[in-house]
Amino acid sequence: MNGNTFGTIFRITTWGESHGPALGAIVDGCPSGIKLGTQDFIPDMTRRQGGNANSATPRKEKDLVQIESGVFQGITTGTPIALRIVNENTKSEDYAAYADLPRPGHADLTTIAKHHHRDPRGGGRSSARETAARVAAAVIAKKILQHFGIELCGFVARIGDLPIPLDAAKQLSISDLKKVTAENSLFLPLSEPASGDWIKLVTEAKASQDSLGGNIACMIYGMPSGIGEPLFDKLNALLAHGLMSLPAAVACEIGAGREASFQTGSAIRDPIGVSDGNLKVQGKKHGGLLGGMTTGEPIFLSVDFHAPTSIPQEIQTASMKTLQTETISVQGRHDSTPLPRAVPMVEAMVAITLVDALCRAGRVPEKLLP
Amino acid sequence: MNGNTFGTIFRITTWGESHGPALGAIVDGCPSGIKLGTQDFIPDMTRRQGGNANSATPRKEKDLVQIESGVFQGITTGTPIALRIVNENTKSEDYAAYADLPRPGHADLTTIAKHHHRDPRGGGRSSARETAARVAAAVIAKKILQHFGIELCGFVARIGDLPIPLDAAKQLSISDLKKVTAENSLFLPLSEPASGDWIKLVTEAKASQDSLGGNIACMIYGMPSGIGEPLFDKLNALLAHGLMSLPAAVACEIGAGREASFQTGSAIRDPIGVSDGNLKVQGKKHGGLLGGMTTGEPIFLSVDFHAPTSIPQEIQTASMKTLQTETISVQGRHDSTPLPRAVPMVEAMVAITLVDALCRAGRVPEKLLP
Amino acid sequence: MNGNTFGTIFRITTWGESHGPALGAIVDGCPSGIKLGTQDFIPDMTRRQGGNANSATPRKEKDLVQIESGVFQGITTGTPIALRIVNENTKSEDYAAYADLPRPGHADLTTIAKHHHRDPRGGGRSSARETAARVAAAVIAKKILQHFGIELCGFVARIGDLPIPLDAAKQLSISDLKKVTAENSLFLPLSEPASGDWIKLVTEAKASQDSLGGNIACMIYGMPSGIGEPLFDKLNALLAHGLMSLPAAVACEIGAGREASFQTGSAIRDPIGVSDGNLKVQGKKHGGLLGGMTTGEPIFLSVDFHAPTSIPQEIQTASMKTLQTETISVQGRHDSTPLPRAVPMVEAMVAITLVDALCRAGRVPEKLLP
Amino acid sequence: MNGNTFGTIFRITTWGESHGPALGAIVDGCPSGIKLGTQDFIPDMTRRQGGNANSATPRKEKDLVQIESGVFQGITTGTPIALRIVNENTKSEDYAAYADLPRPGHADLTTIAKHHHRDPRGGGRSSARETAARVAAAVIAKKILQHFGIELCGFVARIGDLPIPLDAAKQLSISDLKKVTAENSLFLPLSEPASGDWIKLVTEAKASQDSLGGNIACMIYGMPSGIGEPLFDKLNALLAHGLMSLPAAVACEIGAGREASFQTGSAIRDPIGVSDGNLKVQGKKHGGLLGGMTTGEPIFLSVDFHAPTSIPQEIQTASMKTLQTETISVQGRHDSTPLPRAVPMVEAMVAITLVDALCRAGRVPEKLLP
Repeated sequence: MNGNTFGTIFRITTWGESHGPALGAIVDGCPSGIKLGTQDFIPDMTRRQGGNANSATPRKEKDLVQIESGVFQGITTGTPIALRIVNENTKSEDYAAYADLPRPGHADLTTIAKHHHRDPRGGGRSSARETAARVAAAVIAKKILQHFGIELCGFVARIGDLPIPLDAAKQLSISDLKKVTAENSLFLPLSEPASGDWIKLVTEAKASQDSLGGNIACMIYGMPSGIGEPLFDKLNALLAHGLMSLPAAVACEIGAGREASFQTGSAIRDPIGVSDGNLKVQGKKHGGLLGGMTTGEPIFLSVDFHAPTSIPQEIQTASMKTLQTETISVQGRHDSTPLPRAVPMVEAMVAITLVDALCRAGRVPEKLLP
Repeated sequence: MNGNTFGTIFRITTWGESHGPALGAIVDGCPSGIKLGTQDFIPDMTRRQGGNANSATPRKEKDLVQIESGVFQGITTGTPIALRIVNENTKSEDYAAYADLPRPGHADLTTIAKHHHRDPRGGGRSSARETAARVAAAVIAKKILQHFGIELCGFVARIGDLPIPLDAAKQLSISDLKKVTAENSLFLPLSEPASGDWIKLVTEAKASQDSLGGNIACMIYGMPSGIGEPLFDKLNALLAHGLMSLPAAVACEIGAGREASFQTGSAIRDPIGVSDGNLKVQGKKHGGLLGGMTTGEPIFLSVDFHAPTSIPQEIQTASMKTLQTETISVQGRHDSTPLPRAVPMVEAMVAITLVDALCRAGRVPEKLLP
Repeated sequence: MNGNTFGTIFRITTWGESHGPALGAIVDGCPSGIKLGTQDFIPDMTRRQGGNANSATPRKEKDLVQIESGVFQGITTGTPIALRIVNENTKSEDYAAYADLPRPGHADLTTIAKHHHRDPRGGGRSSARETAARVAAAVIAKKILQHFGIELCGFVARIGDLPIPLDAAKQLSISDLKKVTAENSLFLPLSEPASGDWIKLVTEAKASQDSLGGNIACMIYGMPSGIGEPLFDKLNALLAHGLMSLPAAVACEIGAGREASFQTGSAIRDPIGVSDGNLKVQGKKHGGLLGGMTTGEPIFLSVDFHAPTSIPQEIQTASMKTLQTETISVQGRHDSTPLPRAVPMVEAMVAITLVDALCRAGRVPEKLLP
Repeated sequence: MNGNTFGTIFRITTWGESHGPALGAIVDGCPSGIKLGTQDFIPDMTRRQGGNANSATPRKEKDLVQIESGVFQGITTGTPIALRIVNENTKSEDYAAYADLPRPGHADLTTIAKHHHRDPRGGGRSSARETAARVAAAVIAKKILQHFGIELCGFVARIGDLPIPLDAAKQLSISDLKKVTAENSLFLPLSEPASGDWIKLVTEAKASQDSLGGNIACMIYGMPSGIGEPLFDKLNALLAHGLMSLPAAVACEIGAGREASFQTGSAIRDPIGVSDGNLKVQGKKHGGLLGGMTTGEPIFLSVDFHAPTSIPQEIQTASMKTLQTETISVQGRHDSTPLPRAVPMVEAMVAITLVDALCRAGRVPEKLLP
């Protein structure tokens, strides 16, 4: 029981079902002194909905985040910040048809095994809708990171079996990476062919009533060195915990990454040199982490997501009432690929994890004065 | 600070440096009623040292585990179990030469960034020597799993760029998998060519003063369904946390795994059928987890480890005292590949995570009576 | 930072300021299968407001508790339960006059020391208003206790220096104690004289623009034996933690209690006998706990509260802006004594603590089927 | 399960039974840079044994504390510090006679209810012997407090029904209080008559094969203001948690204390004035805490302990084997009153709690450089 809290000092607790009246997050451990208003949430909430946060004319805003506590006169007070998002568009009148038919590839059957009774509307608590609360909470985490000059940028690194040239992306400066991803939040135009191929892939998947998975990568810049808590709470481990808690996450890599496991020891070491009177790792092969602690260099990570299993193609299930097998087709307003929308979700778990790690290292005071 | 505890209800806390007098683990939250003696630790401690636990004539045992509390008359009492392992073979007289020269690819520089003062002998707390405490603690976790009929089996799935035929391994029954891995704890003879190629690879790496990374996989059998705590403590997330806290871990995959992220939605769904009057997932593509909870089917996971960076090849570092660059060659009793020895380490983190997840689900009583 | 969560497995997180838009609690770790509706909260919320929960014609209900998640078709689902209470009666237009004048005897000055920026309206997060969220959350905890046949009953045991005959109260059965306290939630008519004297005391205090503290006691019946987690999480310790977190709590006693510390060892031991084939403590001197674990006998506890410091009598403070001393008189809708209203608050912390202790002992399954 | 860890950031985990081979504590979250050697533990370990730490000729030292990790060249490294104390004087050959006869007034029966199987020798884990680990761990906490100029001093405030003049003690400066208590660690000679009466009381109790309880008080000086984490982790609540986890603790008071609950609101308020350009509480009635956070003034607290129940007087118990009642007399090397020896135990829980509270407020860096 009780897996709805993440973090130790900077700590978020989320609640809410897909088709309930609302959902939200309590952010506890946020320092006082941070400017925070409802407008701050719009860009990432828009990105999560698949919209273009940088477009001049954003569509009618949805998922407006209400701040119900912890902020006075537009500034955080240090008390828990309650964020609440009303579920407006809950077409659940027809859930009854599916209530007794667990959807293959979903959490339906395991939720029944765990709790017996459940809210079947739209996947209930197991819907990806819950990530709205994570993304909202992370807006606050990102503001704290910004105070310390830490920035992060997520992007789609692969759809299906078509990757971008990742090595090139890793070498970009934060401003270049942000520029390139901001121009088009859906497809990173690092590699024109790849981007074009992605559109083709997604179009084909949709046409065949199917869906695609892929990989989201994220770069972190500006972390001070020495952050992370060996042995069990190495920064790698904390990041992996957060990332693998995202819906449909099946694998992740942190720092030097999976590629490093194919190489020899001599190929993955960066030498140490002296810079401005301090010893410093010279190179980026190590991926920003050594021994589970930050080196001060950019940190790389990526997460693999499986394709959505909510597709119109028919599949066999069985009724919990009659114990007879039936064939279902999961209709709905589902994406052919969730990848672009998953970018802010990945950033969310990263941002929250980083702030908590800074807190545990005693780097975040209770009041952040300008 | 304070990252040396893992788990919430079933909880281990480890301590000790590579060349200190001893190291150990406190296992808190172990039910009473479990038979436990010093002999129980020998097989896994031997595997961790690279020995063959199943050989008829084991070499002189090292790393004997002392039980200092929590057991009375050979049976656990429910109080914390203190395990202690004396460091016997600590040739640290020559550490002085290296104390001021952080080793590239190691935690030396990040530890200094974090704590300024450190124990430089043999890597101190960041040495892989610390995994002895984890492996010892997990012997107790495995006994609890056994009580519930849960078994797990780790094995080397790749060395360098040479994998075993993993799909075949995933299909084996637990007894077959255990048999095949027990005959040779170092190299899984599922695929003769691969095994032979591994020996060649390792021999070549050693000859060129280099080292190899790879992948360790693990299968879990017999978990009841509905275990795992969404949202943030999905079993995937808890397993990833534990696995990515292992030394040199750079990536992991849980359940359906990385491969699933390359496939379409239609290709990764297992249908649901009826078996013995209960609804059940029919197939193994989902990898034993749906929505972060167990389905009752075997669970697959794997971890990628980078190659050891302690190799004789020279590399540049700098002196913390003089701020001059120097060239070092890290000699020592190091393996060309740690992969075979990492198998019980992976099993350790898995076993501890599973027991804690069962506890959180209220499935483990305080006393386990026979 | 982050002290707004209580409990480990059964865990509540509260949020909200006195004069913000709303306040609430997230209850995580509640089993599925419990009937829960908005009506269930009315009795304790009414008691907390000083009303008589048992009166035939309750006044217009305030503090209606909204259930925003975790319940489907009137039954808990095992996911986090979000409880929300709108702050309707927030006359904060005049807070500006006090914003720069910290009130002596309140948390104003310490909150400024901690967070610099704060919500000054009505005491912000430090207002006793926050206990509404605790009392609401505890309604769920009480339902779980009820499932296991565990009952508790709090009552005013002293106002100012006038106590009730506590020994007599301790000997009552749960039904008798509930009857006697239900008839009049304000004053326990165990001892007519005392009750009459209390009314006189309170009237006098009000007349002299002053206030009174006192003591709330609580009896717990039906706890199974062996609950509590030595060493640091003995049930005594967990209860004390919860109780001393209540506003104005200055002391507490648990089990044998303070009185026992004045007696000799021979006077406080209860013998052990045999009852229905089981060994059992014979007597109640030990107060229901031995070695921090329950004996199965009724558990006694009490909490001392200091008098409210929000009284019209003038006192010196100083302006944070001008650094000049000033004289203030804290007007408001304040009680001369909070004691009767504190009864459900004490019960709330006890109920939440007991459920979490049962969970930690593995006694609460994830689904409570009728 | 798992109640053997205390603290969140600065965190101790203890282990060990009274008559096992050893007992100890793991201190995790200690900053690097603190001088620490075996000698540092002697004074408090001696006080805990009832010896006079300030005597010129201490008796042969027992309970020598071994440091097994976390310290290099006499300075803490930031990794977990393992403290180990060998149990030398374990006369447990005769435990068999008592193994099946739970001692009234002890944890024997509740331990059996919890764990069924137990170590009966000398009370096992429930023996007051376990406090040796707490006192040892607190030596490190006190060193951290010292770094920040925070000092604490415990003393016996009552034996049986004979108190010292507590108000006078509360007014002393830390140096005066330390002087007065150091001259005689057993009996505080603040009030000659009381001290003389205590000796008489204890002598009489011993003569009648009985024992005495009482009260230990503690003053804390030098805490910065604003420390403590409302709502649930107010400093009052955290201190109460720690104190009520001590063996035989039955009640506690923190800050303004129990006495304040007998007074009117007007009598317990301290005015606020201006001192050196800062607003400051003027007076000590509030006891150093307001709203669960420190004011910067000295903090008062006290704990009531019941008398030891291990006394030679006979009492009825029953055999777990035969289910027949029997009469036992608990012989042993027991004190007539544990009060003097409990002083360092109270200080231990206070010191550990304060350091953790400072850590949570982000006031303790990972490295404490001189």
